[in-house]
Amino acid sequence: MKQVFLESLSLEEATKVLFDNLDARGLYCLSSEIINVTESVGRVTAVPIFARYSSPFYHSAAMDGYAVRFAETFSASEASPCLLKIGQDAVYVDTGDPMPEGFNAVVMIEDVNVITGQGEEYIEIYQPVTPYQHVRTIGEDIVATELIVPENHKIRSVDIGAMLASGHTEVSVRKRPLVSIIPTGTEIIEPDVVRNRPPNPPEIIEYNSSVLSGLVKESGAEAIRFPIVKDKLDEIKRSISMAVETSDIVLINAGSGRGSEDYTLTAIKELGEVIINGISIKPGKPLIVGFVDNKPVFGIPGYPVSAYLTFQLFVKPVIARFLGIAVEENEKIKATISRQIASPMGVDEFIRVKVGVVNERYIATPVGRGAGLLMSLVRADGIVRISAHTEALSVGTQVEVELIRQKNDIKNTIVCIGSHDNTLDILANIIKKNYPKFSLSSAHVGSMGGLIALKRGEAHFAGTHLLDEQSGEYNIPFVKRLLSDKKILLVNLAYRQQGLLVKKGNPKGIKGFKDLVRDDVIFINRQGGSGTRLLLDKHLKDLGINPYTVKGYDREEYTHMAVASAVLTGLADTGLAIYSSANALGLDFIPVANERYDLAIPVEFVDTEMIRIILKILREDEEFKMAVESLGGYDIRDMGKVIFEG
Amino acid sequence: MKQVFLESLSLEEATKVLFDNLDARGLYCLSSEIINVTESVGRVTAVPIFARYSSPFYHSAAMDGYAVRFAETFSASEASPCLLKIGQDAVYVDTGDPMPEGFNAVVMIEDVNVITGQGEEYIEIYQPVTPYQHVRTIGEDIVATELIVPENHKIRSVDIGAMLASGHTEVSVRKRPLVSIIPTGTEIIEPDVVRNRPPNPPEIIEYNSSVLSGLVKESGAEAIRFPIVKDKLDEIKRSISMAVETSDIVLINAGSGRGSEDYTLTAIKELGEVIINGISIKPGKPLIVGFVDNKPVFGIPGYPVSAYLTFQLFVKPVIARFLGIAVEENEKIKATISRQIASPMGVDEFIRVKVGVVNERYIATPVGRGAGLLMSLVRADGIVRISAHTEALSVGTQVEVELIRQKNDIKNTIVCIGSHDNTLDILANIIKKNYPKFSLSSAHVGSMGGLIALKRGEAHFAGTHLLDEQSGEYNIPFVKRLLSDKKILLVNLAYRQQGLLVKKGNPKGIKGFKDLVRDDVIFINRQGGSGTRLLLDKHLKDLGINPYTVKGYDREEYTHMAVASAVLTGLADTGLAIYSSANALGLDFIPVANERYDLAIPVEFVDTEMIRIILKILREDEEFKMAVESLGGYDIRDMGKVIFEG
Repeated sequence: MKQVFLESLSLEEATKVLFDNLDARGLYCLSSEIINVTESVGRVTAVPIFARYSSPFYHSAAMDGYAVRFAETFSASEASPCLLKIGQDAVYVDTGDPMPEGFNAVVMIEDVNVITGQGEEYIEIYQPVTPYQHVRTIGEDIVATELIVPENHKIRSVDIGAMLASGHTEVSVRKRPLVSIIPTGTEIIEPDVVRNRPPNPPEIIEYNSSVLSGLVKESGAEAIRFPIVKDKLDEIKRSISMAVETSDIVLINAGSGRGSEDYTLTAIKELGEVIINGISIKPGKPLIVGFVDNKPVFGIPGYPVSAYLTFQLFVKPVIARFLGIAVEENEKIKATISRQIASPMGVDEFIRVKVGVVNERYIATPVGRGAGLLMSLVRADGIVRISAHTEALSVGTQVEVELIRQKNDIKNTIVCIGSHDNTLDILANIIKKNYPKFSLSSAHVGSMGGLIALKRGEAHFAGTHLLDEQSGEYNIPFVKRLLSDKKILLVNLAYRQQGLLVKKGNPKGIKGFKDLVRDDVIFINRQGGSGTRLLLDKHLKDLGINPYTVKGYDREEYTHMAVASAVLTGLADTGLAIYSSANALGLDFIPVANERYDLAIPVEFVDTEMIRIILKILREDEEFKMAVESLGGYDIRDMGKVIFEG
Repeated sequence: MKQVFLESLSLEEATKVLFDNLDARGLYCLSSEIINVTESVGRVTAVPIFARYSSPFYHSAAMDGYAVRFAETFSASEASPCLLKIGQDAVYVDTGDPMPEGFNAVVMIEDVNVITGQGEEYIEIYQPVTPYQHVRTIGEDIVATELIVPENHKIRSVDIGAMLASGHTEVSVRKRPLVSIIPTGTEIIEPDVVRNRPPNPPEIIEYNSSVLSGLVKESGAEAIRFPIVKDKLDEIKRSISMAVETSDIVLINAGSGRGSEDYTLTAIKELGEVIINGISIKPGKPLIVGFVDNKPVFGIPGYPVSAYLTFQLFVKPVIARFLGIAVEENEKIKATISRQIASPMGVDEFIRVKVGVVNERYIATPVGRGAGLLMSLVRADGIVRISAHTEALSVGTQVEVELIRQKNDIKNTIVCIGSHDNTLDILANIIKKNYPKFSLSSAHVGSMGGLIALKRGEAHFAGTHLLDEQSGEYNIPFVKRLLSDKKILLVNLAYRQQGLLVKKGNPKGIKGFKDLVRDDVIFINRQGGSGTRLLLDKHLKDLGINPYTVKGYDREEYTHMAVASAVLTGLADTGLAIYSSANALGLDFIPVANERYDLAIPVEFVDTEMIRIILKILREDEEFKMAVESLGGYDIRDMGKVIFEG
C-alpha cells in the first residue's frame, strides 16, 4: 500500500493550518499547578503575582550610626553642635536594624563625635539632619499590592527573590506539556546494544528520540520516551493510543514518508484526523500532523536534520502555545555567504552554515546539506533559510543567519578554510582544552579554495600543500600568484606522506598510479582545487595517463578520511590520501610523495590573540606534537617555523 | 570590633588577584565522571569524543526502488532499455534498507517499468546508472575515528544524537562544581515563616540564597543551601568548615561589610586567607574573597543587587573555570540613554536599565539605582557599566548595554514613558496574557517627561494628565505646545479621582490643602513634571499658599503607590494621589479633582501591531475594563475614545 502526498503545503500555509486547527479545537494554554517558589525557575506563571507584603517591611537604618529625631537637629552647626543623649535622643543602630519607635533619621557614625561624661554619654552633631536621611523606608523595594511579574512570565532567579521577598512561598504555574516520543522502525536498536559490539546490518542505532527529548526539555516541556515499536500498523496505533491518553503532544519518529513500511499516516488517519501531510521544505518534507483524541500528533521524519527542523518549526511553537509564552527565537545576524548555493525553486531550504568573524564581517560557509547528516548540525553555527522563490545565492550575497550557537563563541572562532588534514582535529581539541574561550572551525575546500578564501578576507588562515609543477616548490609560488595584494606568512605545520590507500593485504595488488587504469580497479578522487587532486593530476600527466580512463575519477570526496572510508567499505579499491587516514582505519598504504603542509596566515592577523595561540601551540605544545606524531606519517621537524613571509 | 577595608581594588585588579590565586593554588578544571550520554545535555566533556563506529554503518538505499549493479546498465537508453531480472539482477529496496551484497546503485521506483512475464518479473531501465547512485554510503554522516565534539564542549541535544550514532552510550564529563550557600543573619527568617502571617520586625525574609542557588544552577554548578546561621563568629566558622569539606566553592551571605555584626572577614581570616576585601564597584563594594582549605570562599554582600552583581562578576567565572568552559556572556547592544546619569568617579557603577526599540533605535532608561532594590533587577532589561573614569552620562549618550533579557523580547516591548497610573500594571498583565509575544514596559517620569520622551522618539506612547491652568483643559494644550512637530493621537484611558490620602480614620483631621501648612502635618510630594505635582501647585497657588511652608514639599516620590505607602507607613501624614492607590492600601481619601488621563500616541505608530493591540484592549477587552473598575476611582466611559488628533 503506497501512499501519496495529498499536497505539499508551504511552510507558512502549514503553520496556519496547524494553528487554525488548535484554535478551532480550543487548545490554548494548559492548566496550572501550585509549586514552591524556590523550585519555580524556568516555569511560566499562570496568574499575575502581586506583592503580599512590602519590602522592606519596616523602616530600617541604611547606615551604621545613630538614630535621631530630625526635628531636634534643626539648630546644629559647626559653631554650635547639637548635643543628644545616647539612649534617649540618639540610639545606636547597625545597617538593617529597625528604626526605634519615634526616630526618623540616621546620622552616620563618621559624622558624630561621641562624648563620654560622668556616666552619661552624648553625641555631637554638626549640621541639621534631613527627614528619613539614611533610612531604608518601608516599600522602598516593593510596595504591597504591586505587580511583581505578570501572567505568562518565565520565572528567573531574580523573580524568585522578589516573590519570596513579597511574601509568596508558592506560585501557580502552567503545567509542563507532556510530550510522548515514539521511536518506530523494525531495524532500529537501543543504543546500549552496541555498547560491546558493533551494529549488525540492518541494525540502526536509534538516537533521534534522544535528540527530540533534549529539544522537548529545552522548550520547557517534559519528554516521555516510549519503547521502540516495529513497523507494524497495529503496534504503532496501540502506542499512539496509549500516548494520547497520558500526554499533551505525541511525536512518532519515523515512518512519515511514503515507503511501503511507513504507517504513520494510516495510523493517525484511522485513530483521528490528518491535517498536514508533507510540506515544501528541505529537509523536512515528509512531516505529518494530525489530531487523535484532540491531541496534536506529529509524524516526524526519520532523517536527523529533518527531525530537528520539523521539531523547531512545528512542535516547539505548539509547546510555547501550551505554556502561554512566545517561542524563544535564536539571534539573527547578517552574514556574507562564502560559497555559491543552488537551491530548488518552490521549496524553502534550510542550509546549515559555519559562521566566523573575519575583519569584523560575519562569513557564513555552508556545511553538508543532506537531511541525513547529523554532523552538519553538530558543526553548524547557524541556519540560513533560502526561500522557495530563490534559486541560487551567489558568493558574497548577504544572508540572514539564525544562530544556533552563542554569538560570543562565534566571535571567538578561529576560521580555517582550506586543505583538510587530520591534525586540524587535534589542533581544534587542544585549543578548546587549553583556551576554552576559543574554538577552531575548519572548512575543507581544498588548498586552492583556502587561498581564495584568504584573498576574499573570509578566513584567519588556510592550510595548503600545493605543489608547483614547474619549480617543484610547495605553496610559495601559489601564494605569490594568488595573493599578490596581501602580506602572507607561511608557517609549516608538518611534512606528511601521501600515498595510495588500499584494503588491508592489498587484495588487488595495486603498486602505483599505473594500476589505476586497470578495469578491475575503482578509484575514489578528491575534489578539484585540493592539493591532493593536483598531486594526482601531476603524476597522471607525468605517466601520460588520461584521467578519464581512471574509473571513479569523477567521484569526489572532500577529506582524506572520506577517501579512506570509501576504500575501507568497498566503495572504491584505492584513493590518494595521507598516511594518517590509512593508519586511522587500518588500511595499507603505498607511499607516493612526501609533501609540505603549511598554514598561510595574513600578516594582519599575526598579532591577534587567535593566531598567537595557534603559533604558540605549533611551537611549544608538547601534547600537540605527540598527538600529531601518534597519527603516523608526519615529520614535524619544522612545525611552527616561518617558511616564507611576503 | 569594627573592621576597615584594607584597600579597595578595582574590578580588573580584583579579578586578576582572584585568578592569579587560583593559578598559584593549582585550581583549574575539576575531575571528571562517567555518565550516560542520554543524560548529558548541558554537561561539559572532559575528553574529546571520537567516533567508535561510522554512521551509517552500512551502505543503504537512499530511495525506494531497485538495487542494481551499475556496470550492467551501461548500454541502457530510451530506444533500447536495459532489462534486469528481479531477484537476480535487481532487488527491491525501501529507503534505509541495506544494499544487497554485490549491488552498488539504486534506481528510483519512478524511473523503472516493471514487466510481469510468465512467472518471471523484470524491470526496464532507460538510462545508465551511475556508481552508488541513490546509495547512502558508510560514513556519509560520521566516519569512525572522526572528532565528534572536543574536550571542554558543552553538550547539546544534537551532540547527544551524534555520540549515540557513533557508538557512545557513556561519556566522561566534568563534575559539576558544588557550591555551598550559607545564609547568615540574626534577623533573617525562612520564607515559609511568613506563609500565614506577616513578618514581625526585625524579621527579614531570607531570599538571597534562593536567587544565588538559581544563578549557581544556571552557571552549570550544583547548589547546596545551608540552614540560616546567626551572626555569631563561631557558628559562621563552623558552617564554613563544614562547607569546605564537601563543596568546591562557598558563598557566605551576608556579613561582608564592616558593621559590628559582620563576621565574614574574621571568620575567613581565622580559617584561611583573605585575598580581596572590598572592591570599587557599585553596587557590590563589600565583597570578600578568600581561601579556606584551598577552596575559594566568597563573602557576598547582603543587598540583593550587590549579591547578584558580585556573583556574576566573580563567582560565575570561577564556576566556568572549574568546568573548563568560557563564561557565557550576555549579548551586548548599543543604546541611547534617555535620562542623565551622574556616577561617582573612582567606582565602576552598574546601572540597571529598561531597554526598548523605538524607531529602530535602542533606548535605555535607568530604573532604580539602590543596591537594595531587587525590583530594579526584576524590571531591568540590561545593565550599563559606567567606568570609574566617567562622572556623568548626558541624555542621548550612546552606551553599551549588556542584555539580561532576550533581544527578541526587547524588540517586542511596547515602551510607555510618562505618568504613572495603576491601570498600566493591569494593561501590562493583559498584554502578556493574551499576546505573550509582547510586553509593556512603563517608566514613570511624569506626564511632562512622557511628552518630552515622545518628542525625542524614545517611547511608543505616553500617559498624560496635564491640566492647563489657563484654559482648564487637559493634555491638548501641552501636546500642541510641546509636540508641534509631531502628529499625535490622544486616546482616553479613563477619568480618575485625585485626592489627599490619609491614614485610616484620618487621625490628623485633614480636610483639604489648607491643612498642609499645619505644623503637625508632614506632606509627601510627587516629582516635578508630574501631572499630580502640577495639580498640587495649581491648588496651592489658587489658595495663595507658599509651597515652602508645606513640610515635606521637597521630598518627592515617583508613583502614586509610593505616596500611598509613605502615608500608610507614617513617613508622611498625607499626599496627593489617585483613589485606586488609597483603595489598594486601605487609606482614607479626600477627593480633590476628577481628571482626564489620556494616552498620547505618535500617529506614525498607530498602525503598528503594538499600538493596535493597546487600542483593541482599551476598546474591546471586558476583562481589562472590569479589572480597572475594581481598582476604584475610575470612570471608563470614554476608554479608547479618540480625544484629539493633530
